[in-house]
Amino acid sequence: MITQAAIATFDNLELDCGITLAPVTCAYETYGTLNDDKSNAILVEHAFSGDAHAAGEGGWWSNMIGPGKGFDTNELFVICSNVLGGCRGTTGPGSINPATGCPWAMSFPAITISDMVRLQKKLIDHLGIARLLAVAGGSMGGMQALEWAVVYPEHVSAALPIATTTRHSAQQIAFNEVGRQAIMADPDWNEGNYYTGRPPARGLSVARMVGHITYMSDESMRQKFGRRVREGQNRFEVESYLHYRGSQFVDRFDANSYLYITRAMDSYDLTQRGALSTLFENIPTRFLVLSFTSDWLYPSYQSLEIVSALRSRNCDVAYCNLTSHYGHDAFLVEVDEQAELVRGFLASTLREARAIGTGHGRS
Amino acid sequence: MITQAAIATFDNLELDCGITLAPVTCAYETYGTLNDDKSNAILVEHAFSGDAHAAGEGGWWSNMIGPGKGFDTNELFVICSNVLGGCRGTTGPGSINPATGCPWAMSFPAITISDMVRLQKKLIDHLGIARLLAVAGGSMGGMQALEWAVVYPEHVSAALPIATTTRHSAQQIAFNEVGRQAIMADPDWNEGNYYTGRPPARGLSVARMVGHITYMSDESMRQKFGRRVREGQNRFEVESYLHYRGSQFVDRFDANSYLYITRAMDSYDLTQRGALSTLFENIPTRFLVLSFTSDWLYPSYQSLEIVSALRSRNCDVAYCNLTSHYGHDAFLVEVDEQAELVRGFLASTLREARAIGTGHGRS
Repeated sequence: MITQAAIATFDNLELDCGITLAPVTCAYETYGTLNDDKSNAILVEHAFSGDAHAAGEGGWWSNMIGPGKGFDTNELFVICSNVLGGCRGTTGPGSINPATGCPWAMSFPAITISDMVRLQKKLIDHLGIARLLAVAGGSMGGMQALEWAVVYPEHVSAALPIATTTRHSAQQIAFNEVGRQAIMADPDWNEGNYYTGRPPARGLSVARMVGHITYMSDESMRQKFGRRVREGQNRFEVESYLHYRGSQFVDRFDANSYLYITRAMDSYDLTQRGALSTLFENIPTRFLVLSFTSDWLYPSYQSLEIVSALRSRNCDVAYCNLTSHYGHDAFLVEVDEQAELVRGFLASTLREARAIGTGHGRS
Repeated sequence: MITQAAIATFDNLELDCGITLAPVTCAYETYGTLNDDKSNAILVEHAFSGDAHAAGEGGWWSNMIGPGKGFDTNELFVICSNVLGGCRGTTGPGSINPATGCPWAMSFPAITISDMVRLQKKLIDHLGIARLLAVAGGSMGGMQALEWAVVYPEHVSAALPIATTTRHSAQQIAFNEVGRQAIMADPDWNEGNYYTGRPPARGLSVARMVGHITYMSDESMRQKFGRRVREGQNRFEVESYLHYRGSQFVDRFDANSYLYITRAMDSYDLTQRGALSTLFENIPTRFLVLSFTSDWLYPSYQSLEIVSALRSRNCDVAYCNLTSHYGHDAFLVEVDEQAELVRGFLASTLREARAIGTGHGRS
């Protein structure tokens, strides 16, 4: 499959906090071919620790994006960009502040999920796409999909918020806060100024370990590790796994991005714009909402809140609570049923779009 | 209510690891009055971070132990001791190694739940009690209650394992390991040698924060904090709560005890002694097993495993899965129904004991 990585640079981006970032770079990849009327574009949005590399070898959703897959690149043009605040090509706290010539570190302005989406909108404009066939993402990616549908309803025909929520619960905030505290407790964090020294590897590793527990389920951990002990070591396999995942994360993720992005997730509250049912009134976007039975980090009831509000306004919404023991990770690994649902949903969105004309969708 | 705190010192204690600790001190408190035939003694066993101070002001189970309460001190003599490896009066890694004159720190031998119970048996012998009316405890205390029933069946008439398990799942081990890693990532931990310097306060605090999330439930956190923001601060209330709990813990708990005791919990596996149903064969002890619907750290299925095995051997067992939204904390805070069940169960145990004579119980 052909994958293409690129960087787009924009003169500026106004943030919710009132500050304007200038310039802003956005790393993105595309898969498949944009058709002549630019009506087959899908924006796929990554979760907290993801990046623009969604498909192809090592891509975080490579099992879902490709020829004949859930997001079929024989038909569709799939775009994925690294979020604002990230550390994989898009402007974030590790980027150079042009005013000082030094990394922003903790002087980077506070960012929001809306800011992330506003940057994505600039990218889509830059690509000359007036209207996305769909926005799709799991977890934090799902928050962005919801945000797109509410803020740019005329620019997106379908939204696929997966394993997500309109706002974090106290428990979700609490787990993120533990991660943040673990990072900030590491003396190498040094108030965020570690770019010329050692990064806070121990703290970031502990933060990631907590994350991994919440991404799995009691049952998937039992099946994967049980109480097996690492041969020749006085250590449970689950411990070795967490150590490995923690240290691996340190090599690819910036601790300050961890702080900024988790803050953006925790502060996100779609209902601050108004009651969900009001927000969804007259929304032309079609929805496919997915959750997973064993996902205790983003429990199904959070998806059901979205579905109920959409149904109360007679919106076009399909919902499935997929059976899986993989916990929150299910949206990344539980492929077969998810792919079939996504494929079917996108095919019908395409059909509807073609029936109506290039504008696609119901609007 | 009269509470009495004391220290018992024993010449030595043989540990499962083969090492003999000599001497060993054991801090304990008692509530109520031991009757003439010493047949009204209850051993109450604390959870991971508890201590001997179970009842009276500030006692960790003060709502359950006292005159007219679940463990009625008008009738019963209640004993609670700090566990081996602890830091509240009983020998642990913070104690002085008599061979060196310095704290044991990480040279303290590995300890097990069985070792803890063996020390408690010495204490009970020391108090001249041949047979306990009951052993009771939640969480790690429940592991000890199970261990008592299996190892000293002739010395305990009834066991009340509450919100507990016969062995930790991978998820339970994983959460403990995150806590351990947070402590060991703190440079102030210094391989455990911090007794003359600063303790690893930041690491221990992060460890405690993780713990607190697992002790609560999604629902109890929603009810207690929701998404409320601390007035005048840019911080969610749940974050302030976790910070407070974390820093409070540092003042009363030893980081090395955290490492040793969580290791003891994780390594505990009652089924290593044999299949549960075999272990419970011919056991004379009566059981009251309690779990709580919203406890996701020690889920009800873990209690049900115990109950099933007991029933398969026709043991005398009552089981209740109490409705509560408090999560694992429920055994500490959900008093009314629990107290009534405990009171009724102990009353019938007492009645049975008196009918049979001083030996009490069915044996």
